[in-house]
Amino acid sequence: MHVIVVYDTAAERNPRILRTCRKYLHHVQRSVFEGQLSAAQLRRFRAAVEAVLDLSYDSVTVYSFPPGTAPVRHAWGAAEPTPTDIL
Amino acid sequence: MHVIVVYDTAAERNPRILRTCRKYLHHVQRSVFEGQLSAAQLRRFRAAVEAVLDLSYDSVTVYSFPPGTAPVRHAWGAAEPTPTDIL
Repeated sequence: MHVIVVYDTAAERNPRILRTCRKYLHHVQRSVFEGQLSAAQLRRFRAAVEAVLDLSYDSVTVYSFPPGTAPVRHAWGAAEPTPTDIL
Repeated sequence: MHVIVVYDTAAERNPRILRTCRKYLHHVQRSVFEGQLSAAQLRRFRAAVEAVLDLSYDSVTVYSFPPGTAPVRHAWGAAEPTPTDIL
């Protein structure tokens, strides 16, 4: 299924969450990733994300879409992740 | 149409972008908003957002969905915006 992942984490955990997201998804904005994951991949990804989060502070929202209903994405401003975001 | 808005802005511009988003949409995570906007509202919202952004650094991604295709949202971690994010 198509998924969009957005994280809001404390700065000191950004490198780890970024690395985890990049293993599974494409980077579309500093804190936004997208891609295709099976249900099993989504479970593994969730476990990997939760292992690096501080659940009392950090948050991650995941949007999922049934096949054939991917959204239209519009980028306003400096849309591409900057080189310093790519670890 | 249903829209999801995610911003990545420099910290000093967060209060202004947050206020702008809250005029048009619901707050679902620190940097994520959702809601229903007409095409005219989306144009006004975009103008308001671009007025507070530094386009050389900040970025905003907007996902839009045709009627009837709203995504499923999953929250991992501390999903609700914290009180300090609500200005």
